[in-house]
Amino acid sequence: MLYSAIDEIVAEIGNTEIISTDDEELKTHGYSEWSSVNPETLPVAVAYPRNTEDVATIARICHKHRVPLIPYSGGTSLEGNFSAPYGGVSVDFAHMDRILQLNKDDMDVVVQPSIGWQDLNRNLADAEAGLFFPVDPGPTAKIGGMIGTNCSGTNAVRYGTMKDWVINLTVVLADGRIIKTRRRPRKSSAGYNLNGLFVGSEGTLGIVTEATLKLAVIPETYSVGVVSFPTIRDAAAAAAGVMQAGVPINCLEIMDDVQMRVVNLSGSTAPRTWKELPTLFFKFSGSQASVAENISTVQAITARNGGADFAFAEDEREQKVLWSARKESLWSMLALRKDGQDVWSTDVAVPLSRLADLIEVSKKEMDDLGMFASILGHVGDGNFHESIMYNKSDAKERDKVARCVDNMVNRALNMEGTCTGEHSIGWGKKASLVKEVGQETVDVMATIKQALDPRWILNPGKIMDVPWMPKETHVVTADVPVTPIRKAGKQNTLE
Amino acid sequence: MLYSAIDEIVAEIGNTEIISTDDEELKTHGYSEWSSVNPETLPVAVAYPRNTEDVATIARICHKHRVPLIPYSGGTSLEGNFSAPYGGVSVDFAHMDRILQLNKDDMDVVVQPSIGWQDLNRNLADAEAGLFFPVDPGPTAKIGGMIGTNCSGTNAVRYGTMKDWVINLTVVLADGRIIKTRRRPRKSSAGYNLNGLFVGSEGTLGIVTEATLKLAVIPETYSVGVVSFPTIRDAAAAAAGVMQAGVPINCLEIMDDVQMRVVNLSGSTAPRTWKELPTLFFKFSGSQASVAENISTVQAITARNGGADFAFAEDEREQKVLWSARKESLWSMLALRKDGQDVWSTDVAVPLSRLADLIEVSKKEMDDLGMFASILGHVGDGNFHESIMYNKSDAKERDKVARCVDNMVNRALNMEGTCTGEHSIGWGKKASLVKEVGQETVDVMATIKQALDPRWILNPGKIMDVPWMPKETHVVTADVPVTPIRKAGKQNTLE
Repeated sequence: MLYSAIDEIVAEIGNTEIISTDDEELKTHGYSEWSSVNPETLPVAVAYPRNTEDVATIARICHKHRVPLIPYSGGTSLEGNFSAPYGGVSVDFAHMDRILQLNKDDMDVVVQPSIGWQDLNRNLADAEAGLFFPVDPGPTAKIGGMIGTNCSGTNAVRYGTMKDWVINLTVVLADGRIIKTRRRPRKSSAGYNLNGLFVGSEGTLGIVTEATLKLAVIPETYSVGVVSFPTIRDAAAAAAGVMQAGVPINCLEIMDDVQMRVVNLSGSTAPRTWKELPTLFFKFSGSQASVAENISTVQAITARNGGADFAFAEDEREQKVLWSARKESLWSMLALRKDGQDVWSTDVAVPLSRLADLIEVSKKEMDDLGMFASILGHVGDGNFHESIMYNKSDAKERDKVARCVDNMVNRALNMEGTCTGEHSIGWGKKASLVKEVGQETVDVMATIKQALDPRWILNPGKIMDVPWMPKETHVVTADVPVTPIRKAGKQNTLE
Repeated sequence: MLYSAIDEIVAEIGNTEIISTDDEELKTHGYSEWSSVNPETLPVAVAYPRNTEDVATIARICHKHRVPLIPYSGGTSLEGNFSAPYGGVSVDFAHMDRILQLNKDDMDVVVQPSIGWQDLNRNLADAEAGLFFPVDPGPTAKIGGMIGTNCSGTNAVRYGTMKDWVINLTVVLADGRIIKTRRRPRKSSAGYNLNGLFVGSEGTLGIVTEATLKLAVIPETYSVGVVSFPTIRDAAAAAAGVMQAGVPINCLEIMDDVQMRVVNLSGSTAPRTWKELPTLFFKFSGSQASVAENISTVQAITARNGGADFAFAEDEREQKVLWSARKESLWSMLALRKDGQDVWSTDVAVPLSRLADLIEVSKKEMDDLGMFASILGHVGDGNFHESIMYNKSDAKERDKVARCVDNMVNRALNMEGTCTGEHSIGWGKKASLVKEVGQETVDVMATIKQALDPRWILNPGKIMDVPWMPKETHVVTADVPVTPIRKAGKQNTLE
């Protein structure tokens, strides 16, 4: 079936380069060394469409033959999101990486899925549009995957997440039909919010081939400041305090002592080195006057929480270096691995008032593992990441890490949080999603999936199990039980 | 079937007051004098649930008997959204109007559907939480309907629309199952964004019985300024200029000469009166310093566009009066009706660069009608409203108005806009939705509807027609043809 599908695709598109079965390509499209999980299978082919109609042709033929389709752009996701547990065709958008239209006066841009957000911003800078795209996940992430995971990044505390920046999408449906979700208004109440549904659906409901994105006006000035704290709890409490005061900061990041050591070891800010203490990174933006004002408000709040020595980047170069030290922290940690080591990196988010509690207990449990492990994250959103280095050939060690991670996730759920603030569910967190929202809510998601993709060919096994396949959710090893989600019932009577 | 459903509901809930068939109540729940359309039918009963379980019981029984269910809260919608074209039961949340939980440190609040946004804000002020809920549609709108229509209001230019403020929803599904969309994180990438799907679905996919909403920190200070322009085009161009400069304004509203006359006639800002010219209303917020800075930037931009005499509210009282003159403009216009007159009020939104074009031509066509008609709106979002007073017993006159409105909508679509920026589709704009996004995209919406509500009992006939019922979309009278939505295809090759 698969091979007749491949033959049909080549014949219909009339280009033998449209699809590859090269072993090395299959591996890079089905396995990721930074992902927390990797199923044992790989895709059987990789397709390289050149336009939306190619994608529609591929979908129509794969639908007929019931062949899985897995969209691929930057490949930076962390939960096995682009893995191929049931084989099938990885659809790599490498040739669809262009800006199609820049509407400067409307402050929007039309792009293809394989443009990176950094490339997009470089192009916008070259066009002297005075505009930028503010969603900033891992440096090499691309728009297609960013839409799939509803990613965010350090700017999210001010600018929101991916779903907030999508004006319309062109989507190829499971059977090859092409739809466009909207025209180009910045605001609409016309019909179901399909943008909001496709964003974050990890390619399981349709394949995005084009997106119109809102752009933001580049602020007049930036300032980056760093302040360290005696404990991680103090740092988290200061972060919550800044949010509760409503200071319009641009970014608010936390890095623990270990992560600060990683920055120093990487040498990326040399000759400057940093105290290896729990640290908050602030980015301020706006006019000169408003930045100065916000800095002084934040300094007062951090000082009340034990923050010492607010240090500022001295110039624009140092701002960039400092911020990229933060942005590249996962890659810096990966670079420190020795042979045979892997890094397990995962994220959760909780209501602001619980952030300090969760970070403190998670940090302690992680430290007790005795492994190289760090906490960092977007604390302004109540969102943080745990990264643990372990020996991948040691099953016992991996199990210890899995238990530690699962405990953190379960604690986050018990604090009314989420098992993922920005990395999404993928293949790795399906069991956590069921615990988070309850089986009835996952059933509603599955009902929508079934309706739009009745043959389950679109990225099958991600977010939820395929109903007729053996359960493949990763084994839950946590010690911390999860309290069920509270649904409103009779307790909400007027009596 | 309906009457056995009513009997079963009363028997099972054990409360005869749960449901009413009083004629007057049926009329107020099925007919609206400010709606652009009203079908000829009314609901057959009105249910008054007291908690989520009551709603679940009502849904389960109505599902069994295939009886329509139409959620009702504030009743302020404008497109026949809560009308009962197929009879059935109006579910009025009058008894579910409470704040269930205020989480001050997390900056969120848990509410029932029938609390008004103004009551919510009064309660938050009483609690001295320093927080407010920023989505501000018509003054008497309630949270349930605001979720249904994905409403917005004057604050949207800064704070976004309803979908941006929902953390989780408790939803009763068509068959009476109860789900909760999420726990309580401010940010999540866990599974499909059901919040984003239910918000704006007008009760056609599920009935919202509880919502957790984000809150914003009350700014330190506000300032309200008013500036008039020689032409409506100048005013619209100035508005676009302010947005393109990235000034972080709180609100940016346009009112035409007619609407300014309505304010003067209403006497609400007496003794102060206003020039009856096209006018922009600005609200600034933030610290004293940032407000002063933003005002000076905006003054420069408006002056370049012919704006004269920036006048500021003199104190907090005048700010409130001035803003409520803007907020209550539709009601002020309704108050000016003579016997037998109705007001047709509708909204569209377009990309910013097309706003001045559309407003200018729409205003001219409206003026040519020779009726009492005005333009006002949230121009910072490219969104504006047209309100036309007409004689409702004069079929020819109504047809002229319908033609004028449809022309405006079609022009907005041709400018890549939307047929509704914030009022939603309801019963009145179904034909426009098809023109806006294309039949294939409406088909996707219908597939989701069919999957979640296979008997089409939830607010049937809204957003889209019921497949097996005669088409009931309102007759399209426009002279302006609509260009089809552009879908990406081969035109986007690399060649």
